[in-house]
Amino acid sequence: MTETSKRSSGRRGRSARREARQSTAQSSIPYIKRNIPVTNLMSEEALQIIENNAEIILQETGINFVEDPESLQIWKDAGADVQGERVRFPKGLCRELIKTAPAEFTQFARNPERSVQLGGNNTVLAPVYGPPFVHCLDKGRRYGTIEDFRNFVKLAYMAPSMHHSGGTVCEPVDLPVNKRHFDMVYSHIKYSDKPFMGSVTAPERAQDSIDMASLVFGEEFVQNNCVMINLVNANSPLTYDATMLGALKTYAANNQAAIISPFILSGAMSPVSPAGTLAQLLAEAMVGIAMTQLIKPGTPVIFGTFVSSISMQSGAPTFGTPESLLVLSGAAQLARRLNVPFRSGGGFTASKLPDAQASNEAAQTLLMTVMSGVNFALHSAGWLEGGLCSSYEKFVMDMDQCSMMEVLAKGIAIDEDAQAMDAVREVGPGGHYLGCAHTQRNFESAFYRSKLADNNSVEQWQADGSLDMAARANALWKKMLNDYEAPSLDPAIDEALIEFMVKRKASFPDSNI
Amino acid sequence: MTETSKRSSGRRGRSARREARQSTAQSSIPYIKRNIPVTNLMSEEALQIIENNAEIILQETGINFVEDPESLQIWKDAGADVQGERVRFPKGLCRELIKTAPAEFTQFARNPERSVQLGGNNTVLAPVYGPPFVHCLDKGRRYGTIEDFRNFVKLAYMAPSMHHSGGTVCEPVDLPVNKRHFDMVYSHIKYSDKPFMGSVTAPERAQDSIDMASLVFGEEFVQNNCVMINLVNANSPLTYDATMLGALKTYAANNQAAIISPFILSGAMSPVSPAGTLAQLLAEAMVGIAMTQLIKPGTPVIFGTFVSSISMQSGAPTFGTPESLLVLSGAAQLARRLNVPFRSGGGFTASKLPDAQASNEAAQTLLMTVMSGVNFALHSAGWLEGGLCSSYEKFVMDMDQCSMMEVLAKGIAIDEDAQAMDAVREVGPGGHYLGCAHTQRNFESAFYRSKLADNNSVEQWQADGSLDMAARANALWKKMLNDYEAPSLDPAIDEALIEFMVKRKASFPDSNI
Repeated sequence: MTETSKRSSGRRGRSARREARQSTAQSSIPYIKRNIPVTNLMSEEALQIIENNAEIILQETGINFVEDPESLQIWKDAGADVQGERVRFPKGLCRELIKTAPAEFTQFARNPERSVQLGGNNTVLAPVYGPPFVHCLDKGRRYGTIEDFRNFVKLAYMAPSMHHSGGTVCEPVDLPVNKRHFDMVYSHIKYSDKPFMGSVTAPERAQDSIDMASLVFGEEFVQNNCVMINLVNANSPLTYDATMLGALKTYAANNQAAIISPFILSGAMSPVSPAGTLAQLLAEAMVGIAMTQLIKPGTPVIFGTFVSSISMQSGAPTFGTPESLLVLSGAAQLARRLNVPFRSGGGFTASKLPDAQASNEAAQTLLMTVMSGVNFALHSAGWLEGGLCSSYEKFVMDMDQCSMMEVLAKGIAIDEDAQAMDAVREVGPGGHYLGCAHTQRNFESAFYRSKLADNNSVEQWQADGSLDMAARANALWKKMLNDYEAPSLDPAIDEALIEFMVKRKASFPDSNI
Repeated sequence: MTETSKRSSGRRGRSARREARQSTAQSSIPYIKRNIPVTNLMSEEALQIIENNAEIILQETGINFVEDPESLQIWKDAGADVQGERVRFPKGLCRELIKTAPAEFTQFARNPERSVQLGGNNTVLAPVYGPPFVHCLDKGRRYGTIEDFRNFVKLAYMAPSMHHSGGTVCEPVDLPVNKRHFDMVYSHIKYSDKPFMGSVTAPERAQDSIDMASLVFGEEFVQNNCVMINLVNANSPLTYDATMLGALKTYAANNQAAIISPFILSGAMSPVSPAGTLAQLLAEAMVGIAMTQLIKPGTPVIFGTFVSSISMQSGAPTFGTPESLLVLSGAAQLARRLNVPFRSGGGFTASKLPDAQASNEAAQTLLMTVMSGVNFALHSAGWLEGGLCSSYEKFVMDMDQCSMMEVLAKGIAIDEDAQAMDAVREVGPGGHYLGCAHTQRNFESAFYRSKLADNNSVEQWQADGSLDMAARANALWKKMLNDYEAPSLDPAIDEALIEFMVKRKASFPDSNI
C-alpha cells in the first residue's frame, strides 16, 4: 500500500543513514493495524432508526448552503430541491452518491515509509488542531507562535505513536492571518516527513497548500494521489458556509481528501440527546461527503465527527463525558455502514492544566476512540482547555497513552510461544517466572514501557524528587526538542518551497482577517 | 431479586424518613445494569486454546494445597490424583463441578434497597481493598487507622456510584492484627447500609464475620442467603495456602460467596505473555470455584482476577498497561463461558499522587472493566501507589468516574423523545437548540454532571483559585465527611454487636500476627 514514490530514490548517504537510524527507533508500521474486533454499542435496529431519521431530516428540513451559489447549482444539477439557500435531498440521493467514495485510501508522506492507510482496520493518530494558545508549566498560558508551531511539529515527528504531523498544531498568532498558512505547511514539510494537513481557511489558501505539496511530490503525483487531508467543518445545525465549501471544492477537485466534520456541541448545535445528535450529524456528514463525489467521483473523503456536550448550567463545552463516548461509538458504526473512513476522538479535556482531570477525560475518549475503530483521530496529543490550548506537557503524556493503544489494538497473541506452556511446566506450583527460559526469551518486548509512568517504590520516587507526571512530562518534551534532528529534505525542493512562499507573500498585503 | 427481609419492617419514623431523603439523592437501582453489549476481544478459537491449556495444566502440573490435609482429602474424595501436597485433576472434573454454582445471585444489604445482583448484565462497584497506608493532600502518606477506615466507609456510603461498602478499605494498623476484623465488620454495618465483605485472614475471623452478620440478618437468613462476599486469593502460581483455604471453606459451608482470585503479576507469578497468564489463571480459578461447590453445591461464588504486569527493569508492578487490559477482557470472556459471575478491574495506578498518572491508569482500567462486562469491581475508588495507599482525593475522583460508567452502560436511548425529531424540525438550519422545547424538557437529566471536572472559562477558573482536580477533590471529600449522616441501625442490633465484640475480644490476648 505504501507505494515507493520516485522522489525518495535520490536520498542516499549520510542523511539516509541518519534516517534509517531514526526509523529503527520507531514502530515498524507507521500506524495502528487493529487485530481486535470493533466495539459496537448500538443495535442494528437503532442504527436503522437513526439512518431513517437522517433521511427524513434531509428530505424535510434540508441543509443551508450560505453565500455559495456554485454549490447550490451543483446540488440543483444533482437533482436536489433548491429554494433560496436551502437544499432538500430526495431520499437516498446522498447515500447513492457516496458509493463512489473509496472505503480505504493511502495518504502519502514525503517519506514513503511514513505513508498511512486510512479506513478499514487502520487507526491513524494525529496531534491537536486549532488552538490559538499554548501552555507549558514554565511559562503558563500564552498565544501560540510559529516557534511553538515548529516545536509541536518536531514533537509529533519524534513520537512513534503520532502517525501524522497534523495541521494547525497551534495557531502561529505572530504571523498575519492571511499568510500564516505558508509557514505552517512549510513547517510540516521541513521539520517532519510524516503526512500532514492543508489550509482550509480560504479557497486560495487551500490552493497554496496544493501548490506547495506539488513542489514536494510532483504535480502529477498530487493529482493522482492523496498527499493531504483537510478539515472541513459543517456549521451545525444543518449549514455549510462558503469558506468551508470553498476548501471542500478545491481539495476534492485536486483529489485531496476532505474530512467532512460536523462540529457539534450537543444541546446547543444539535438535540440534547445522543440519538437526535447522531441523526443530525449523519445528515450533515452525508451531504458533505456526497458533495465531494459530485465534484470528483472517487475522490478520497473521510466521515468526520467532533461531538461533545455542554454544561447545562454554564453552556461551557464538556469533554470525556459518557454521552460523548456513546455518540463517538455510534457515529463510527454509522460511518462503517456508509463504507467510508471515519474520523473522531482524540485526547479531549476541558481542564486548564495537565492534571488528573485532563488525564481522566482524555483517557476515556482515547480508549473509546480505538475500541470503536476510528480510522483517523485528530487531537490525539496536546489538546487542553477545550481545544483553546496546545499543551507541551499534555502532548507527551498523550503520546505515551497513544503508544499503549497500539499494543492494545494488537490483541492477545495466541501462537505457541505466546501460549507459554513450556514456562508453566518449567516453573510449576510456587515457583517464580522471572528466570525461566520463556521469560528470558520474551522479556524485552513483553510489556509496554511507559516513558512517563513512575512505577518505582515510594522511597525511590521520593529520592527522584517526588515529581508528579506533569513535571516528568515537562522534562521529557524538553529532552525531545533538545534531541531533535530534522529529517533530510532535498535542498532543491526546500529552495523551491521558499521561493514560492516569498513570491506569493509579496503578491498581496498582510491582513489579519 | 432484592427480596425484602423481615428485619427492615420495624424501621419507621424519623430515621426512616431521613433514609428516604438520602435514598432519593442516590441512583434508583443500587448497581449498574448494562444495556450495552459486552466487548469481546478474543476469538472463539483463542478461547478454546486457552481452555484446553488450562485443562492440561490441571492434569499434568496440578495445584499445590499447602499445609491443609483436609483440602487434600476433599480432592481425593472427588476423584483427583493427590501426591503429597500436589493435586492433579482429571480432564473436565473442575468444569463439571462448577456447574452447580449459580450464574447470578443477590448479595443482601441490611437495607434491602441496597442489595446488589452479582452476575449477568450487572456491574457492582466497590472501594479499594487492602492498603496499609492512607494518603491525603493535607497529611501526605501515613499508616491507616480505624478512623481512616470509618472515613472510607462513610465516603463509600455517600457515593451513589459505590454500590458496595467493600472490605478492608484500609488496614486499621492502630488495632491488633488478630482483633481488627471485629471493628472493620462493625464499621461496615454501623456507618453504612450497603453490602460488605467479611474477614479472610483466618478461619476463626471468617466465623466471627458470619456471627456478626447473623446478629444483623438473623442466623437462618444468613444460612440461606448471601450477605457477605469474601476475597480468597490463590497464591499464584498454582498454589492455595491453608489461610485462604480456611476462609474459603468456612464461607462456602455457610453459604457466603468467595471471590476466587488468582493474584497475578505477569512475568513473576505467571508467564510473561497474556495467553499464558490466562491459561494459568483459568486453571487456578476453576480449582477454587470447584472447591466451593465440593464444600456446598450451589453455594454462590465469583470468578476473580487480579492481574497486572511488572516492570521488566525494576520488577515493580505496573498498572493501566495495555497487556493488563487485554487479560482483564479475556478473563471476563472465560468467566462468562463458565457461567459464573466475574470480578476484576478497578481504578488501578502505580502513582504516588492523585495526579495525571493516577487518572490515566485508573481510567483505562475502569473503562475496560465496564466494557468487558465485569460483574464485581473491587478497587473502583481510592486505590493509589499499587494498592499500598488508600487515597482520599483519588477516592472521590474515582467515584466521579464510576458515576460516568453508569451513564455509559445505559447506552443510547432510542425512544421517540430521544430521537428528538421534533427538535430538529423546530430549530432548523443555523438555529440554536438551547431554547427549544425538547431541550427544555430534557436538559436537567440530559448530560452527566461531574462533581469535580472544571469546564469553566480560564478566567472563571482563575477567579476560583486556579485549582487542579486533586485540590478540588480535597475539598469534596471533606465536605462529604462533614455532611455525613449515619444510616439508622436498630439499637438492639447495635448493642448485640458491641456485646459480641467485647466478649470475643476479651476471650484471647492481643497479637500482631
